[in-house]
Amino acid sequence: MASSFGHLFRIATWGESHGGGIGVVIDGCPPNLDLSETDIQCDLDRRRPGQSKIVTPRKEADRCEILSGVFQGKTLGTPIAILVRNEDQRPEAYTEMATAYRPSHADYTYDAKYGLRNWQGGGRASARETIGRVAAAAVAKKVLGHLAPSLEIVAYVKSIKDISGTVDPETIRFATVEANIVRSGDPSVVDAMIDLIQSVRAEGNSVGGVVECVARGVPPGWGEPVFDKLEADLAKAMMSLPATKGFEIGSGFAGTSLTGLEHNDEFYMEGDRVRTRTNRSGGIQGGISNGETIFFRVAFKPTATLLRSQATVSSEKKETELAARGRHDPCVLPRAVPMVEAMTALVLCDHALRQEALRLPGL
Amino acid sequence: MASSFGHLFRIATWGESHGGGIGVVIDGCPPNLDLSETDIQCDLDRRRPGQSKIVTPRKEADRCEILSGVFQGKTLGTPIAILVRNEDQRPEAYTEMATAYRPSHADYTYDAKYGLRNWQGGGRASARETIGRVAAAAVAKKVLGHLAPSLEIVAYVKSIKDISGTVDPETIRFATVEANIVRSGDPSVVDAMIDLIQSVRAEGNSVGGVVECVARGVPPGWGEPVFDKLEADLAKAMMSLPATKGFEIGSGFAGTSLTGLEHNDEFYMEGDRVRTRTNRSGGIQGGISNGETIFFRVAFKPTATLLRSQATVSSEKKETELAARGRHDPCVLPRAVPMVEAMTALVLCDHALRQEALRLPGL
Amino acid sequence: MASSFGHLFRIATWGESHGGGIGVVIDGCPPNLDLSETDIQCDLDRRRPGQSKIVTPRKEADRCEILSGVFQGKTLGTPIAILVRNEDQRPEAYTEMATAYRPSHADYTYDAKYGLRNWQGGGRASARETIGRVAAAAVAKKVLGHLAPSLEIVAYVKSIKDISGTVDPETIRFATVEANIVRSGDPSVVDAMIDLIQSVRAEGNSVGGVVECVARGVPPGWGEPVFDKLEADLAKAMMSLPATKGFEIGSGFAGTSLTGLEHNDEFYMEGDRVRTRTNRSGGIQGGISNGETIFFRVAFKPTATLLRSQATVSSEKKETELAARGRHDPCVLPRAVPMVEAMTALVLCDHALRQEALRLPGL
Amino acid sequence: MASSFGHLFRIATWGESHGGGIGVVIDGCPPNLDLSETDIQCDLDRRRPGQSKIVTPRKEADRCEILSGVFQGKTLGTPIAILVRNEDQRPEAYTEMATAYRPSHADYTYDAKYGLRNWQGGGRASARETIGRVAAAAVAKKVLGHLAPSLEIVAYVKSIKDISGTVDPETIRFATVEANIVRSGDPSVVDAMIDLIQSVRAEGNSVGGVVECVARGVPPGWGEPVFDKLEADLAKAMMSLPATKGFEIGSGFAGTSLTGLEHNDEFYMEGDRVRTRTNRSGGIQGGISNGETIFFRVAFKPTATLLRSQATVSSEKKETELAARGRHDPCVLPRAVPMVEAMTALVLCDHALRQEALRLPGL
Repeated sequence: MASSFGHLFRIATWGESHGGGIGVVIDGCPPNLDLSETDIQCDLDRRRPGQSKIVTPRKEADRCEILSGVFQGKTLGTPIAILVRNEDQRPEAYTEMATAYRPSHADYTYDAKYGLRNWQGGGRASARETIGRVAAAAVAKKVLGHLAPSLEIVAYVKSIKDISGTVDPETIRFATVEANIVRSGDPSVVDAMIDLIQSVRAEGNSVGGVVECVARGVPPGWGEPVFDKLEADLAKAMMSLPATKGFEIGSGFAGTSLTGLEHNDEFYMEGDRVRTRTNRSGGIQGGISNGETIFFRVAFKPTATLLRSQATVSSEKKETELAARGRHDPCVLPRAVPMVEAMTALVLCDHALRQEALRLPGL
Repeated sequence: MASSFGHLFRIATWGESHGGGIGVVIDGCPPNLDLSETDIQCDLDRRRPGQSKIVTPRKEADRCEILSGVFQGKTLGTPIAILVRNEDQRPEAYTEMATAYRPSHADYTYDAKYGLRNWQGGGRASARETIGRVAAAAVAKKVLGHLAPSLEIVAYVKSIKDISGTVDPETIRFATVEANIVRSGDPSVVDAMIDLIQSVRAEGNSVGGVVECVARGVPPGWGEPVFDKLEADLAKAMMSLPATKGFEIGSGFAGTSLTGLEHNDEFYMEGDRVRTRTNRSGGIQGGISNGETIFFRVAFKPTATLLRSQATVSSEKKETELAARGRHDPCVLPRAVPMVEAMTALVLCDHALRQEALRLPGL
Repeated sequence: MASSFGHLFRIATWGESHGGGIGVVIDGCPPNLDLSETDIQCDLDRRRPGQSKIVTPRKEADRCEILSGVFQGKTLGTPIAILVRNEDQRPEAYTEMATAYRPSHADYTYDAKYGLRNWQGGGRASARETIGRVAAAAVAKKVLGHLAPSLEIVAYVKSIKDISGTVDPETIRFATVEANIVRSGDPSVVDAMIDLIQSVRAEGNSVGGVVECVARGVPPGWGEPVFDKLEADLAKAMMSLPATKGFEIGSGFAGTSLTGLEHNDEFYMEGDRVRTRTNRSGGIQGGISNGETIFFRVAFKPTATLLRSQATVSSEKKETELAARGRHDPCVLPRAVPMVEAMTALVLCDHALRQEALRLPGL
Repeated sequence: MASSFGHLFRIATWGESHGGGIGVVIDGCPPNLDLSETDIQCDLDRRRPGQSKIVTPRKEADRCEILSGVFQGKTLGTPIAILVRNEDQRPEAYTEMATAYRPSHADYTYDAKYGLRNWQGGGRASARETIGRVAAAAVAKKVLGHLAPSLEIVAYVKSIKDISGTVDPETIRFATVEANIVRSGDPSVVDAMIDLIQSVRAEGNSVGGVVECVARGVPPGWGEPVFDKLEADLAKAMMSLPATKGFEIGSGFAGTSLTGLEHNDEFYMEGDRVRTRTNRSGGIQGGISNGETIFFRVAFKPTATLLRSQATVSSEKKETELAARGRHDPCVLPRAVPMVEAMTALVLCDHALRQEALRLPGL
């Protein structure tokens, strides 16, 4: 169950970065939706390595194959299995890691948990695992298109290290984000961000940052009151992505410096629609969407795998040093944007279907 | 399923703040553990209203009754049902809320989701719902006592509005926290915090803040690699508590301003134990505990229910004003501390049992 | 999770026959349904002891209390907790069983599993546990009333030992069944059945039999294709009831003596409705309802607890003899009828909601 | 979730008989078990078409590929994905079924549920779906080998139509069953069974029968007391197989003609082991294994797809006739034997791990 996510729109991902491939099974997708590999490939391409000069140069086409659940271009209502073969595998680039644990990576903890690990390329801890999530989310977006036609999910890089952009969650557009290779929401800081990433790469070092995500057009009523609060499921979804260290929604941590009178979002009527004058709630109140824009931020730490030598220990429990070789992202943020967007779509799709299931005809 | 939490140590809470009572059913507690109401009451008393001059004066003894699953002082391995009756109910204090939505509370979203709500006292959105969680966590701690005897969970108030304490996660003790009514981890800021809370109460206003929680003595290997990462489940657990707006672990959001070389936790050997020199990971790497202290922070917004008049709308969708009456916490932080601790215990207990289930004899 | 059942209409039962009480929590009931204790009590009364001269004379009023999830007579959409207190407890009647295992009862296996057991009255293995199921099913029937208004569930005693009734599943009515204390579907065999039960009771012996259940008015399309086939979930539901030894649907075991040509149900059109000329499928094909009457049979073994002495062993692993005292059903069938009906309602309600969740607007 | 099975050893199957392939993802398999394709292929070969003259002549090698979760011959503890490509696809043999519903098959109900179906070969209702189950069960047997080394699961054909074998559940051996192409447990009836199957095939007709399965060496204590009773999970598992109409355990339906005194299994001591003199319980009491041999029977109806013309209706809701072409099993029993065995292994493995998770060290 550890590799499954969602209740009604339920996905199970599988696969290591080195091995037969990576994939996902989607159980619970409604029937009669148009679906083809093209719908999925588009998002996979935004996630894949080698897409620009500031990400890892690994060459993976990440071509997906739909193995089941679709017939004559329509979803059948039965499980949709999607497979992406691994191609550019270079286990020899990982031989040091067969014994030496990368600092702040999952090598040691996997050994501690399982007693063994696939040391070729990070196993399940590789960002490659997120292929399954992104593929499934492409399907989730199709479902959402029927349940909330005006829904828009846009994620973007808010900051990299100390360089921060200025973005308005109400107006930021997908095209603006995709127009630059950083996926910054603010075009004015793109060049500085690229310079920074290229400079840390040259040093064998890395940087992190913050991704912000907005979901506009979520109708009121999605979410649950207690454990499965919409913000709780979003938090879990984001903190399940590799390299994440924090999640905050609406006013977030900064909101704790306000008083209640300053923080509360007063209601008013806009025609027959209940609106709030401010949106410190971030679109969710008591676990349930209120119809305002949902927005939240996710902190990504600097990439752990470095080309610089660092002190560590070996699987034989001897102190040693390790400098990684291989092709790694000096900054995960540009490729994290479609991952954040994907997890958002998965959470919203599941809650949308849950809300549908709660409504009885005539009540 | 929305009111259930956990996989192997699974709880289901139920109950509204006004109604027959509040309770929890625990399914999956191992047999033969000593358990009595006294073990549970102790934590409920730390959560209950009326415990000090800075919390709500509602008079609720919150006496618990174990209805099943325990026989002659031992757990049976079958479901443990725990009931707390509601006592100090004053629905008349909520009559305005029958029609007017409290800003930034769940009144409107419950109506949007369900088409009706129990307007007496907040329903499931009341902090009273957490009684079931705290009671279940008292049982979880018993289980953890067998699986990790040296485990200590200590939560404390880190900041209230702009007043922040200085606390060392490695050494902070439960007794220090419980020695002051704010549950601050830093005794030097207690008086200022009390003054602040009393002053905002006098104004009918409210404040929020940050709770930090540490778990020392978690063995390496708890957690899961993908969706059920230990930090992801902790994030969900915390963000499922009322009034939370953010979660961060280890270096958190501040960690994004470091480079990889600065951020990575180098490994070394301490005797035969793998240790890290720093702990920016917050005790978890790749979703799995590494044996270092787990610590994280949770942002709580200022209490939404205010005694001051605010603009809002009614359930008939008319604009109106609302000033709450009734007895509310001007600051939820002191009572949030045992809730954060409880959710931490529930997450750790579940993952401890999951790890037990994964280990085959002789492998 | 072992005490939970269902996915969308999910129940968790708790309680032992001796202890604080018995109950259930229902999570996933849609809001705005009319519900009161009266709706539930009616079915509990059909299940309770002491209702006639052929069942156990234990005096339990089994009065239920709705503790949560209902407000001003309407379901809130949040968990509904229902409590029935234990009243007529006589632990002294079970003192022999503190050490001696009843043959074919669960005393030994509970000890083997848990290392201890509540020997007063059978613990969770008592038929008293089914109170929670019957109470939850009363709520499920309310939901079904909205999703399939013409649905009728009727269960009845088909045979007791070698006395078998003749019943037409298409026409048998609830009132016919409830008009006799055996709950036989065939009035002509009632007297013989009563005589048989009274005669085995006089000998301290017991008998079993078969309950048949029909569900008329299930629309086509409920159920799932693979593991959660409708007949699979019904089988699990029935085999989870105490004392059951077999389940068969439609043609059942007898159907294996037919050829395919004899067994197949040919389709024809009745107006615009697809019908089958025969119904050996029992209303389900490939795991999914086809709109014909669902009917199945459940085998209940003779009651294991006997007043006659039998060889057994003690919890100290010594051979011994045991004759039960206390008040036991000489035949569980009359009280099993509402239990079978309840489990049928729970399965159908869950699958009805699952089917609702699968249908997207406009597709 | 509808295509998932199990709690701790959890499998998700996917795939249609015509399409990219068939597969399974196993989540929850413990690490460090030896595993290769060879371990799995062996059971797949017992299930595959074309294996003898009495089954369908479809030519499918059913070669499996392990795509993930295994590294250097050992399980990693992470999801194991297994893929079998479809090869001998002849959609043209199914063109009539694009519009005409096969009587007693799932064509109509799939259309009723989903509004469309993959009419090429039966979709998810094809017995081909069980490839994923059989593959997963091969892995489950590896786990069981560590948790109950003396466990033996043997399934066999008990009867075909009116020809019934005589088999002793305590002594029947796997080799005896595999020595004949019917997989009869009684060699003396094999020839008659083969003759019968060949004769109905010649007529374009079909037959059904009963499979019996025994599990010897299950330790006391596996199973759960209420909904997840071991017999309930076995019943669900068996009734989820295609073409099943009934399940009975131990004395089954015939046991209802005995009195309690006749039916009860008296306990005695065999050395320090608790035994029963008879085994009408079928090795399970109160949902939990008692250490005796578990045995049960499963009724399989005659194959629905016939080469003889039958009345039916079309997807346009017109009455019509249909005679199938294509290559179908005249009797599913020989190939059902490994399926029954597989589902038994999956249920036992899951419950074995659940019991492990319940045991705390030192309690």
